Amino acid sequence: MEKLEAVIGYTFRRKKLLEEALTHPSYDSVYCYERLEFLGDVVLDAIVGIYLFKRYPEADESFLTDLKSAYVNSHYLHNVGMILKIQEFVRCINQPPKLDNFVEAVIGAIYLDGGWKNAEAFIKRFILDREMKPISNYKNILFMVAKKCFNSEPVYILVKEEGPPHKKKYTFKVKIPGKKVVGNGIGSNKKDAEMIAAEQLLLKIKKHYPVVRDLLEK
Amino acid sequence: MEKLEAVIGYTFRRKKLLEEALTHPSYDSVYCYERLEFLGDVVLDAIVGIYLFKRYPEADESFLTDLKSAYVNSHYLHNVGMILKIQEFVRCINQPPKLDNFVEAVIGAIYLDGGWKNAEAFIKRFILDREMKPISNYKNILFMVAKKCFNSEPVYILVKEEGPPHKKKYTFKVKIPGKKVVGNGIGSNKKDAEMIAAEQLLLKIKKHYPVVRDLLEK
Repeated sequence: MEKLEAVIGYTFRRKKLLEEALTHPSYDSVYCYERLEFLGDVVLDAIVGIYLFKRYPEADESFLTDLKSAYVNSHYLHNVGMILKIQEFVRCINQPPKLDNFVEAVIGAIYLDGGWKNAEAFIKRFILDREMKPISNYKNILFMVAKKCFNSEPVYILVKEEGPPHKKKYTFKVKIPGKKVVGNGIGSNKKDAEMIAAEQLLLKIKKHYPVVRDLLEK
Repeated sequence: MEKLEAVIGYTFRRKKLLEEALTHPSYDSVYCYERLEFLGDVVLDAIVGIYLFKRYPEADESFLTDLKSAYVNSHYLHNVGMILKIQEFVRCINQPPKLDNFVEAVIGAIYLDGGWKNAEAFIKRFILDREMKPISNYKNILFMVAKKCFNSEPVYILVKEEGPPHKKKYTFKVKIPGKKVVGNGIGSNKKDAEMIAAEQLLLKIKKHYPVVRDLLEK
């Protein structure tokens, strides 16, 4: 624990909180990370949101939303966990867990133990330290395009689901009824796979339908 | 403005902020509520989340998530706006807007002007003042049931879309491929309509399949 405290740059008064944040329910179903993850999630969202709001005084709300996504999505947070080597401290039976939940739980624990300022310091040091690009919600954009240009809605089809529970791989296909172009996406969760498929379909539609290109470049 | 300040119980140092929070982009596309809504959304989520976390020390994270939904969903926030009579102060051209966005923007404005404490006071007085029941995410539950009991996934079909842009009515149908039971839902947005359809289908499935009843009562 002291080793991890040194890495994250915060010393807990209540060490139990850090322990709880790193405990998977397979190890202890009562004192596990889940409640702290709930707390860390809302605290992280607020700290990142407030930071971006102040840092980009001219940006509109869709830019802020997409840029926040880049800092709080599970893939990015898992990578932050890897950098902190959180997996070495996790108490877990069976499968190696995804680390994003533990990162959020650690944020929740720091907030409870040390308050807003300390949670903010951690987030600024390990999460907001990199320049990220906004993550566009391609599913929303595709929906808007399908509605406006084709008076229709995209349909997502789960093509394949592979792998063991902790290492799933989903393949999705997306199309617009009556149109020939198809987008494909593979991801470790459904949302990511659908998002990639939507992005691919948007690129194809842009190529085939000038009216869509014009709409998207506005 | 002074009248509204009296209602919400907070006096702004920077009146412009409150004005901005109540301006629809149809009236002024630059100084409108959208950025403040982004800010208010994350602040509201954090304040409600932290409050519930502390108030229910024994509750698990799914209860906390569902109870938070009850306090931050757009339907409930629209009603809060009605109680505050926010529509009387909104600057908007054309359609009467939904009020949830303005409520979030007012929270963002209070936070910017008066800090966390004042935003918290507003939220405790007007949003957390009622006892609410957790809103279960029936779509998630149905997905889990379909997977575990039928090795399949629910399919949502948009049956009907009616009404003008600001007063939409969506009708959704949901079924599990190969099963006869169907759930129906009507709502003012897609998510609500799907959620109601999922809830109805779950009730029907529980009646017809004892194995599902057992699973859900665990």
